[in-house]
Formats: sequence, C-alpha cells, structure tokens
Amino acid sequence: MNDFNVSCPIPVKDYPYVLLSHGSGGKLMYQLINKMFLKAFENDILLQGHDAAVLPAEAGELAFTTDSYVVHPLFFPGGDIGSMAVYGTVNDLSMAGARPKYISVGFIIEEGLAMDTLWRIVQSMGQAAQRVGVQIATGDTKVVDKGHGDGIFINTAGIGVLPANQAIGPGHIQSGDAIIVSGDIGRHGIAIMSVRQGIAFETEITSDLAPLHRLVQSLLDAGLNIHCLRDLTRGGLATTLNEFARSSHRGMKIDENAVPVRQDVVNACEILGFDPLQMACEGRCVICVPQDQVEQTLAICRDFPEGQSASVVGRVIDSAPGQVVLQTPLGVDRLIDMPTGEQLPRIC
Amino acid sequence: MNDFNVSCPIPVKDYPYVLLSHGSGGKLMYQLINKMFLKAFENDILLQGHDAAVLPAEAGELAFTTDSYVVHPLFFPGGDIGSMAVYGTVNDLSMAGARPKYISVGFIIEEGLAMDTLWRIVQSMGQAAQRVGVQIATGDTKVVDKGHGDGIFINTAGIGVLPANQAIGPGHIQSGDAIIVSGDIGRHGIAIMSVRQGIAFETEITSDLAPLHRLVQSLLDAGLNIHCLRDLTRGGLATTLNEFARSSHRGMKIDENAVPVRQDVVNACEILGFDPLQMACEGRCVICVPQDQVEQTLAICRDFPEGQSASVVGRVIDSAPGQVVLQTPLGVDRLIDMPTGEQLPRIC
Repeated sequence: MNDFNVSCPIPVKDYPYVLLSHGSGGKLMYQLINKMFLKAFENDILLQGHDAAVLPAEAGELAFTTDSYVVHPLFFPGGDIGSMAVYGTVNDLSMAGARPKYISVGFIIEEGLAMDTLWRIVQSMGQAAQRVGVQIATGDTKVVDKGHGDGIFINTAGIGVLPANQAIGPGHIQSGDAIIVSGDIGRHGIAIMSVRQGIAFETEITSDLAPLHRLVQSLLDAGLNIHCLRDLTRGGLATTLNEFARSSHRGMKIDENAVPVRQDVVNACEILGFDPLQMACEGRCVICVPQDQVEQTLAICRDFPEGQSASVVGRVIDSAPGQVVLQTPLGVDRLIDMPTGEQLPRIC
Repeated sequence: MNDFNVSCPIPVKDYPYVLLSHGSGGKLMYQLINKMFLKAFENDILLQGHDAAVLPAEAGELAFTTDSYVVHPLFFPGGDIGSMAVYGTVNDLSMAGARPKYISVGFIIEEGLAMDTLWRIVQSMGQAAQRVGVQIATGDTKVVDKGHGDGIFINTAGIGVLPANQAIGPGHIQSGDAIIVSGDIGRHGIAIMSVRQGIAFETEITSDLAPLHRLVQSLLDAGLNIHCLRDLTRGGLATTLNEFARSSHRGMKIDENAVPVRQDVVNACEILGFDPLQMACEGRCVICVPQDQVEQTLAICRDFPEGQSASVVGRVIDSAPGQVVLQTPLGVDRLIDMPTGEQLPRIC
C-alpha cells in the first residue's frame, strides 16, 4: 500500500467504534480484516488467508522473537504504538544479527476504541513495515469488553534470517571490549512522560523510536567482529549492562561523562526525579566490540541519523565480575544495579 | 520440566500478587523470568536468553501463525488459558499441514493477578508444550495497571515445518469433496458459558480443547490427499464453511442430521438460545477430501480420542457458489450465513 493517510476503509458513520462483534469471528471481523488490515498490510503472504502463513524456505538459522506493546498513550511525540510494535520487534531480531523478514500481529482491542484511531495505528504499522522491508505475514484480532483492556494492545512476533557463522550474544563478550552506545539515551521515556503528565519542557522532546536494522546490517557487512548487541528498552542502560555483566561473568566499567544524554533530557530527568541511566529508549543499542574496531564502528553508526551521537561509554573488565561500575565525574566509582521498583510503567 | 504441580517458585508470602514492577525490566522481572518462566518452559533455545532466539536451520517451507487468548474465565472445565494458548497455535500450524516446532509467548498481565494463578497457568503451558513436543523459544512479559487489563492475556506465535509439496488450503477445495468434521461440535462454547453464567446442566460439559497435530499428522502420513483443513474456533462451523465457500467459489451443502453434536450440548444451546453451528470449538476441524478417501480419513480420525465422533457432514457442490446450504431434517434447504452479531465474546 502506497497511499497512506487515506480515509478509514470501514465507514466511520456506521461503525464509529470497535464493537465486540469485530472480534467474534463473524461478518464484522471478516470486513475489518479484509477492508482494513489487508489494505494496510497488503502482501502476497498475508493474502494467502489461511490459519497459518506459508513462508518460503530459508537457508541458514532463523531468529525468532516476540514483544507485546501496551504503551500509554497510544500516540506520542515521535511515534505511536503501531510503528513501535514494528520497530521494536525488528530491533530484537537485529540484535541477534538477523535480517528481519516476517512479523505477525496480534491485536487486543478494547470495545469502544474509535475506528479512526485503529485505522491510524494500522496505517502506521503498514508504513513502518514497508520502510523496514518486513512483511506482515499473519495476524489475529481479539476484542475485549469495555473496561477490561485499554484502547489497544499489540503483540508482534518476528522471524529473521541469520548469516552463517554469526556469533553475537552476551556469551561472546570479551574482557577489554569497548562498550558503545549507538546514540543519546532516554528520550523515549521522557517523551512518553511529557504527554502522560502534561509536562511541557522548554523544547519538545521526541522519542528516539527508530528501527536499527540498517545500522546493524552495515556493521555486519563491514565485517566487524561484533561480540554483543542489545537494544535499550525497559530499565535502560543500567539494566542492559547488568544483564551483560551477569551473563558474561565480567565487569562493565562505565564513564558517566561519556554517556550521551541530551541536556534537555538531563533537565527533564532532574525535574521528574529519574535517572537517565534507567530511562527507556526505543531506537538505541549497546554494542560490544574489540578495541581495535572502535573507530570503524563509531564511523558506521554516525552515518545514520539514529546513530549520530554514538559514543564509547566504557569497557569490559575482568575485575568486578557480574557488576556494573560507574565512574562519576568526580572520579568516584559507584555500583549501578538494576532498577528495583517501577520507574515508568507502560512505556513500551 | 517434569515435576508439575510443584509450589510457586516466587515466594507467595513476599509477592502474593503480580506488581507493575514485575514488568518493568528491573530485578523483579528478571526474577520472574528466571525463576518461574524458565523453570516451567525449560529448553536449550529459551536458555539462550537473548533478545531473539536462534533456531536451527530447517529444510523446506515454514508455517507461521499467531493468536491472542483473552478467554474469560481463565480456568474452565477441560482446560485453561495456558493450555489453550499452546494448543490453539499448534492447531493453526497443523491446519496448514505443518509440524509444529516453536512457539513464542507474550504475557500481558494485569497488576494484582495472584502470583499462584500465574504459576498454575505457566505450568499448564509448559505441560501442554511438552505434550505436543513444541519448544517455547522466546517470550515477553508486560504488566498493565489494575483496571486496564483482565487478569492475563496471552499471545502465542508459532513456527512449523511443512513437508515438501504440501498443498492444503481453501484454494485446493474441489467440487465433490466430502466435508468431514473431526468430532462433536460446540462443547467449548458451552463449557465457557456454563462457568461464566453459573449454569449447571444435568452433566458437566467439558471443553473439547485438544491439540490436533497427531490426527493431522496421521492423515498426512497415510498419504491422503487432504484438500483443506481448518479448525473450528470463533463463529463455529457456520463461519468456517462460509469462509471455505467464499475462498473456493463453490457451494457447501450440509446435512443437519449428520452434524455431530452431543444431546447435552443441543439441550444447553436451546436453553441459552444459541445455534450449535455457530458455537466455538477448540479441538475440532473441518477436513475436505475426495470421496474415495472418506472411509480411510474417518478411520484415522477415530483412532484418536479427539476424533472419535468424526463424521461426514456434507459435500462441496458446484451450484450455490460462495454459499452454505443446510438441508434440515425436514428436507428443506436453508442458507447459513456467518454470524452477524456477537454470540459469545471472549471464548478464546
């Protein structure tokens, strides 16, 4: 589908809101699928219209992932739940070094969601899938009674294809590796909070939501020896580095001064009482590479808008196995743990 | 995992209920995943613990499907949302003729769900996956604030492997094909309604929930020329046959007397004002085969408990393309359409 922003294909005059019957397996569901979903997601595989989509045979290993998206609000500066549901799963596949190919979509809609809102979200998903070059291969729609959901929740599962001899994962992290963050952190969390709390900062802070498949693909195409990749989502950099430390039985030494955070995000975090290291992103990742490949890695990242502020933030150490050590601007070492409480519910 | 019904691995004394923090990406989520989910679903692929699971290369085409499960109540006679989330997706893969191999699991939990309830559901999923021989390869957990969900919703996506030269689907339906139903219909819908409405019938009606992979695999192994398969879920037999009629541009002629429905289900439908043809099943399918393979198909189905009441219910005709024609016991022909309204919300 190439003409986005066309009017809602389900007549809003007749069906201003999603009804329970739109998920009942009957006529209205059939119409919703055929008129709206197939229009926005159109591709040969989806058009098979069977219980399961048949995918062509692939040489090599596959990557498989899933995420549900329950972000509130549904629309925020820089994105919406629809584009997020596509990019988030694309990013999870990319983090395994895979080329994203197919995604499934499961909608859980609350009775009473405006039909036009659903159409905006569905269009956004179709557009995101087209931009990334993945096919929405199969889907499912459920409608729950009013008061037992929250507008819409979206699950996507994704399948990607792995190049031969790929070995990316926490188990491949080596002592001495440079720890690179692919861009400035924390904007997604602040963008959501600003809408949710109705807080206006001096400048609008837009989410960092972005697909990372091009950036990762370029690193792999360059033959770089990437040891580990992980996108920063819930729990932020603090959580990801703690997971790396535990899985690799090594220490992660971080220089606080080197962590790329925009000043407006720092200011917003101060106002809201948040730690930027724990803030969620939706288009940033951590990259572990040998020291001699740092310059090339940074150069490739910075070729992309989503990687422009890529920076080395620290290195993997032998001491402090399982721990994340932050060197503060005053030169003091501080241990950074995973967040324990709930900082930002429903940011993704 | 072989020891089911063990006590909840998250101390219920400390965490009697699921908290928002269990979905925040921090320590509590890490514990929930490592102590509960990995324990119940244990397998080598899941233990990779990366953003995406890496699956071994497969020869041949793949089948890919997804479904969300929002059934209410969570436990019902004959099953629960956990086993249903595994068997439902296994069945969708089987309907494409695929051998189910991997599933993903996405939990959307409402804050306040009893931890022990979650554990029962998770155990049931693990047990169902083990019974069917699929691996739960990857997962995701979200927690939404109280009042914005309903206990738990579960999405599963599934990957299966297709044998070479498989051609199963509505496009392969031929005029003259026999239409077989794999077992008695409507028990799942009635089982759910009996719990939800607190209605006691003379006998307890248990759900027909069952995985259909063995039955389908046996039909394929026997070299039968299966033209089309579809499991009966929302909208029941009436919806499936209408979909077949539309996709194949043929007519579906059904003999009402031949449709297998238990008398207690007929009675319950009469009391509740439901049409058995529209009642949901969770372990039944329609099979279209050439007439000369009917006896063998029925014999194979009846080898399995889930196929014991397999019956020929009608045949595919050239006249009435796109329509489902029901011959009533009085010999009158009646057109059967898809249900228009909502008969039974949240039965799956």
